[in-house]
Amino acid sequence: MSKIKVGIVGGTGYTGVELIRLMVNHPQAQIIMLTSRSEAGKKASDIFPSLRGLSDVVFSDADDEKLTECDVVFFATPHGVAMKSAPYLTEKGVKVIDLAADFRLQDLDAFSKWYGMAHECPDVLKQSAYGLPEVNRDVIKDAKVVGNPGCYPTTAILGLSAIIDEQNRQNTQLIGDHIIIDAKSGISGAGRSAKMEMIFSETADNFSAYGVAGHRHLPEIEQGVHALLGSNFKHKIRFVPHLVPMIRGMFSTIHLTLTEAGGAVDWQSVFERRFQDEYFVDVLSKGQLPQTRQTRASNFLRMAVHQDGETLTILVVQDNLVKGAAGQAVQNMNIMFGLDEKVGLDIVPVVP
Amino acid sequence: MSKIKVGIVGGTGYTGVELIRLMVNHPQAQIIMLTSRSEAGKKASDIFPSLRGLSDVVFSDADDEKLTECDVVFFATPHGVAMKSAPYLTEKGVKVIDLAADFRLQDLDAFSKWYGMAHECPDVLKQSAYGLPEVNRDVIKDAKVVGNPGCYPTTAILGLSAIIDEQNRQNTQLIGDHIIIDAKSGISGAGRSAKMEMIFSETADNFSAYGVAGHRHLPEIEQGVHALLGSNFKHKIRFVPHLVPMIRGMFSTIHLTLTEAGGAVDWQSVFERRFQDEYFVDVLSKGQLPQTRQTRASNFLRMAVHQDGETLTILVVQDNLVKGAAGQAVQNMNIMFGLDEKVGLDIVPVVP
Amino acid sequence: MSKIKVGIVGGTGYTGVELIRLMVNHPQAQIIMLTSRSEAGKKASDIFPSLRGLSDVVFSDADDEKLTECDVVFFATPHGVAMKSAPYLTEKGVKVIDLAADFRLQDLDAFSKWYGMAHECPDVLKQSAYGLPEVNRDVIKDAKVVGNPGCYPTTAILGLSAIIDEQNRQNTQLIGDHIIIDAKSGISGAGRSAKMEMIFSETADNFSAYGVAGHRHLPEIEQGVHALLGSNFKHKIRFVPHLVPMIRGMFSTIHLTLTEAGGAVDWQSVFERRFQDEYFVDVLSKGQLPQTRQTRASNFLRMAVHQDGETLTILVVQDNLVKGAAGQAVQNMNIMFGLDEKVGLDIVPVVP
Amino acid sequence: MSKIKVGIVGGTGYTGVELIRLMVNHPQAQIIMLTSRSEAGKKASDIFPSLRGLSDVVFSDADDEKLTECDVVFFATPHGVAMKSAPYLTEKGVKVIDLAADFRLQDLDAFSKWYGMAHECPDVLKQSAYGLPEVNRDVIKDAKVVGNPGCYPTTAILGLSAIIDEQNRQNTQLIGDHIIIDAKSGISGAGRSAKMEMIFSETADNFSAYGVAGHRHLPEIEQGVHALLGSNFKHKIRFVPHLVPMIRGMFSTIHLTLTEAGGAVDWQSVFERRFQDEYFVDVLSKGQLPQTRQTRASNFLRMAVHQDGETLTILVVQDNLVKGAAGQAVQNMNIMFGLDEKVGLDIVPVVP
Repeated sequence: MSKIKVGIVGGTGYTGVELIRLMVNHPQAQIIMLTSRSEAGKKASDIFPSLRGLSDVVFSDADDEKLTECDVVFFATPHGVAMKSAPYLTEKGVKVIDLAADFRLQDLDAFSKWYGMAHECPDVLKQSAYGLPEVNRDVIKDAKVVGNPGCYPTTAILGLSAIIDEQNRQNTQLIGDHIIIDAKSGISGAGRSAKMEMIFSETADNFSAYGVAGHRHLPEIEQGVHALLGSNFKHKIRFVPHLVPMIRGMFSTIHLTLTEAGGAVDWQSVFERRFQDEYFVDVLSKGQLPQTRQTRASNFLRMAVHQDGETLTILVVQDNLVKGAAGQAVQNMNIMFGLDEKVGLDIVPVVP
Repeated sequence: MSKIKVGIVGGTGYTGVELIRLMVNHPQAQIIMLTSRSEAGKKASDIFPSLRGLSDVVFSDADDEKLTECDVVFFATPHGVAMKSAPYLTEKGVKVIDLAADFRLQDLDAFSKWYGMAHECPDVLKQSAYGLPEVNRDVIKDAKVVGNPGCYPTTAILGLSAIIDEQNRQNTQLIGDHIIIDAKSGISGAGRSAKMEMIFSETADNFSAYGVAGHRHLPEIEQGVHALLGSNFKHKIRFVPHLVPMIRGMFSTIHLTLTEAGGAVDWQSVFERRFQDEYFVDVLSKGQLPQTRQTRASNFLRMAVHQDGETLTILVVQDNLVKGAAGQAVQNMNIMFGLDEKVGLDIVPVVP
Repeated sequence: MSKIKVGIVGGTGYTGVELIRLMVNHPQAQIIMLTSRSEAGKKASDIFPSLRGLSDVVFSDADDEKLTECDVVFFATPHGVAMKSAPYLTEKGVKVIDLAADFRLQDLDAFSKWYGMAHECPDVLKQSAYGLPEVNRDVIKDAKVVGNPGCYPTTAILGLSAIIDEQNRQNTQLIGDHIIIDAKSGISGAGRSAKMEMIFSETADNFSAYGVAGHRHLPEIEQGVHALLGSNFKHKIRFVPHLVPMIRGMFSTIHLTLTEAGGAVDWQSVFERRFQDEYFVDVLSKGQLPQTRQTRASNFLRMAVHQDGETLTILVVQDNLVKGAAGQAVQNMNIMFGLDEKVGLDIVPVVP
Repeated sequence: MSKIKVGIVGGTGYTGVELIRLMVNHPQAQIIMLTSRSEAGKKASDIFPSLRGLSDVVFSDADDEKLTECDVVFFATPHGVAMKSAPYLTEKGVKVIDLAADFRLQDLDAFSKWYGMAHECPDVLKQSAYGLPEVNRDVIKDAKVVGNPGCYPTTAILGLSAIIDEQNRQNTQLIGDHIIIDAKSGISGAGRSAKMEMIFSETADNFSAYGVAGHRHLPEIEQGVHALLGSNFKHKIRFVPHLVPMIRGMFSTIHLTLTEAGGAVDWQSVFERRFQDEYFVDVLSKGQLPQTRQTRASNFLRMAVHQDGETLTILVVQDNLVKGAAGQAVQNMNIMFGLDEKVGLDIVPVVP
């Protein structure tokens, strides 16, 4: 089989360079086009010297017509870019994977409220797939456009999926009405751009909360729990994100209360069963606790479940730039092209 | 007035060196004795070169008899040390402030369960004061022995006190049965000792949870909420601590649900009123969010309250070594000796 | 004595907020004016919540006329600002301390080459003092304008002063022609502004060199060695700065070779004698090695000297924002107003 | 070809787990034995959860006889272990690669002086190869025992090799008598063990020097320059190592003076020519400066050369655990077994 011809639009951010890193190691895909308005003409390795000797790819100007030479185009761009190109590209038979938010929310009002712009291709959106393989693999397989999930929603939806599934299976409410997601992210989640509040002296040796009054990942988590997982029960979700002085890594602590029926469940077993065939999702042994570095630079997401009387605590870790972004995008590409999901992604986490 | 004669037992840990730092700046107190079995004969500035030129104090052997020359003795020792000396010292008229846990828990069974030892002076314990000035000032004033609170309980009890007080005042349940405390601590909380899991390469660029199955600060928080604050309602408290790759700083995110009555309360005002006369407790303006560095190296504790429909989120920050340990101990000393609480403690946080 | 009336122009950067921190603690000075074009009307504690409860000072518009109410004005501004105001202010009897570079270099050509602008008040410059108290105290005392030294030059000139003095005293060349200064700085030295290469994800867990082809602190170091210290011998100085993933702290490793005469000198004694009366300069004991944290948040500069056959290594540490900037500026103010140099500056370093 | 059967002795340290990471990714090698006295019976993934799902290898007791089933045995042990087993293993036809110092120094007195023990197999030592492929490939190819270089010497010897070679070629002294190596290392270089001075709170936000009075890597660097590179001129080398608050990464700044003949050389070209065929050594373009993260988690070593009048500055970066340890060991294995050097090592650095 010839290699998948890959285009990357907007390769100068962190998800872009991470895509390049993963593609260099991918045996069945090859970057044939890399675009950036600001860096056109420069080699990727001039912007990211870490790529010297490994990739000769050169930035060119973005141009939808030229992108039709690709089999698949990744958009590692700000929100609102992919939706401008997706209709044309898909019409020409090019698959699209958007790492921004254009194809995450099916609710058009929610999209325009949280992202400050009207959606430009609602029809394409309606037929796009939400790119969370472990709960939506079958739809992704045949999709022309995939909306790659947000980093927080990946941890939240996967962290809750075993519970919602079990609740649906038993058709009984097992957890209380309120789901609390106390999430912590490394700083690379804020992207590669000059923001004063992100400079080292403002963020190092410091811990802070943000988005307490509302964060755009909440509607995506709600959609995941209620539509994607199809919860029979209406849970209210409270989401509070925090910033950790580390480059990569995301840790979501999900706090639940248990109903009497929920207290009778052996949650460790439920979780282990739910993910036993998932290569990238690792349910830790009873009593083990996750650390973000256990997933550093890899596509693994690890979780632990802890039952304490009437409360249930789910602890989920991932690398926000891999399973939370570029790695999951490649996993989606593998699915869309009929490859084994782990091709190019069986990377050992970097520890220490 | 002559200066308070201060003794510090166990000055080689982080709370010890922090006490020395604060005492050097204290205009009305003076270290006359500093003990350490391992470092006897050495100057404090040999162990902590940061003290060169500022303090000539020399470590001596611990000896209760010699300590009677002090007006007050701080125990910056492991748990179980202060309770051996407190009966003798208090009999001799020396006040005792323990920075470890010997005088925190009134429940003897809880103490022996969580600290693995029987209490050796239950009578002294019964008459000791829990050293959280903002809720227990009147008792501290006349105490001979003060149990300085744990770092997490300081944030948790102060973070909850305005709510419990209001609930008591209205004599109506305002918050749900479950109180969730998702806490994050800098690594200095683990102390100054050679532990493999605390070395830089294991903790930097990493975020982890610990004590999920149970942490000794939980019974102290429960005691604080139920006995100290005298909650009329029985709340179940879930406490999950995490480790942040920063030296100092503690951030507690307290998640609550609101009853209908609770939803009608203007919590921002309740919090502001509750702490309006407290120098060291700062209720941020509506919409502001705390960061740990806003308290770095200072005795301030800052908090924000955010109401979101049926949930209430309290965000509390402090420097775990100051308000969470040595600074609060000095604040207690000031109270015990009739000084203004802020003497020696009006330190500007170090930012950046 | 009434308090010194202090004005700070440009208080929104790191040297500005550090000046505020030091002034809040200074018993004989008081900020009466704080200016910032961008933040006029806001409280300093809105920009820096660390100041809440400690300072009520409010930003106003910069205005030279209003500044004449001050006894002394600190310029914590970009290069080129102080030189516009200094002639007017000094004429009106207001002393000026510039934390930028306008009054560091006496050589006008060097100034315009390295700072990209012509000097606007060469006459004032000529009469200004280079604000390095340990080598220039007598001139500072009577100066109307003080150019506060750069952070690197502070470590370099003080690190070399004992050697150059001894060489002058013996009137024999003791060290080789080449002086190599391999310097390392924490990231706060780059200031509080939105620069992409300074964001956490670009700087953390990373070590880099910069300015290898030339750095504006080199002519200042050369001026210090040749003019200020009056070296009888013409040494060539090579200066290579590096960036360390820490907020504060500066470490300069000075590599020298020794002539035969130089090899016969007991350098430890020479250094100790040189600084025996200097409160803020600490020569470590033989064999001890400095760490930047030994000076964190304090005005101390510590150094060690190590002789190894034909080479001599001087290791110098300081907090770049204190002795390397704001603290030294306050030390200069104390001198200019006849106060004890250490008033307001006897701060214990923050460790850990 | 069947896979190389690999044994790793002492896989619980950082070089051990790094070897495991590299071997999991190596298409032509396989770990068949992993030994650790302390962890025998446990899975590697129990000690390093980052390996969960990727490696099933189990720790067993060290036993030279069992190790003879291997084609090659890596010693990721403390100094002094490999030399006990090497004679037996090599006799049995098993190749040995020692990541500790047993086979680095040919001078037996230097070995016993710096490592505090007598060498136990001088004959094997004499026939062993110093495992720096870029200067010693031909000897490594046929060696039974390879002493993997120290991390600092790797940067120093490669950083100097182009210069010494050119000097030998011209048979004229091009650089001055003194070579100054100012080196900076991430903290993982201190290993995975419980040392108080390595805990996060002692090392983070801090920069320090160590080994200023003498470091065991100096004789290895001297051997490299004088014997390995065969310098015709006797240079005196001064080596000063420092500790950087980052996990991985090493940065060596080499300061040289140039003779008149040396000043006439185009060093950029000399360096580029010297390494043009070396996959893992990257000479940056003129004016570019290296950062440690450009090599993070990869086997690349990058360097820049800067000429400034009479001085020459060489800046070298690598990942101390990869090119400075485990990666170079795998590179040596590849050479010893006739594989392409880069098999299993064409890893893209992890940035950010």
